Amino acid sequence: MNKIIFNPIGIVHSPFKKMEGTPIQSFVAKNTKGRVEIYPEFTDGLKDLEGFSHIQLLFHFHLSKKFNLRVKPYMDDEFHGVFATRAPSRPNGIGLSVVKLIKIENNILHIENLDIIDGTPLLDIKPYVMKFDKVDDYKIGWLKKRVHRVEKTIDDGRFNK
Amino acid sequence: MNKIIFNPIGIVHSPFKKMEGTPIQSFVAKNTKGRVEIYPEFTDGLKDLEGFSHIQLLFHFHLSKKFNLRVKPYMDDEFHGVFATRAPSRPNGIGLSVVKLIKIENNILHIENLDIIDGTPLLDIKPYVMKFDKVDDYKIGWLKKRVHRVEKTIDDGRFNK
Repeated sequence: MNKIIFNPIGIVHSPFKKMEGTPIQSFVAKNTKGRVEIYPEFTDGLKDLEGFSHIQLLFHFHLSKKFNLRVKPYMDDEFHGVFATRAPSRPNGIGLSVVKLIKIENNILHIENLDIIDGTPLLDIKPYVMKFDKVDDYKIGWLKKRVHRVEKTIDDGRFNK
Repeated sequence: MNKIIFNPIGIVHSPFKKMEGTPIQSFVAKNTKGRVEIYPEFTDGLKDLEGFSHIQLLFHFHLSKKFNLRVKPYMDDEFHGVFATRAPSRPNGIGLSVVKLIKIENNILHIENLDIIDGTPLLDIKPYVMKFDKVDDYKIGWLKKRVHRVEKTIDDGRFNK
């Protein structure tokens, strides 16, 4: 298999210093402010981003050292395939969050709705365009009976190994 | 900077054999069927994925050989910062599509709404849960005046270099 090599374009600065206690989805972290520092050589790629109110951050789950194909996700007590969850212990540890973009100062993005741990390496930023991802009718499998837990569930450190 | 190394978990089989002519967003590719082949060692991670009607595919823009920080995206005639677009010529070439999951047979996912090129290496699959990404009020910057073009715009090969 061909390896794919990425280099971080920046780093996330967050009030969450460890996995335990971090919100598990950005939409339940509405009052959490943070910053994304883009490395200076990539700053030019931010032009016109400020017009977007929301952005997708793709980042590396750098604290998840190994992956599991069956996981017990934060919101459930049963095991599921890792690809049927958003658990961090994935074969390729790519995280995805939609956050609110408040303003950009040079290479610093001020953001809200942050559910990412301090020091997380950033891989990519995409403008969030709900129209592109919206689906009219959809099913969410095992989560249907568990999704009510999302607002009361925080990271309990189960993937921190 | 610390390199991050990923190994593909599978490959996309698609009717689109080259960049030119490929739809630029999945929601305008509603009738396009394809398959995602998961490498056998990862099949166990698919358990319970079939309950979800839509999934996010994260993949490698393997045909974009170099990146540009300023790009003229498919839907516009002006240059923007690459992070304010979804253009494939990104510093870390990670693509993201929401596709419809029809069924899973062993390690093969049958999908619809496919806007990905044949042979694309797959990095990750996440269940799509619109509730997690939904925002009530949002702005889409330069795209506001251009988004009407999305249904008539296809890849013209501009990033195929």
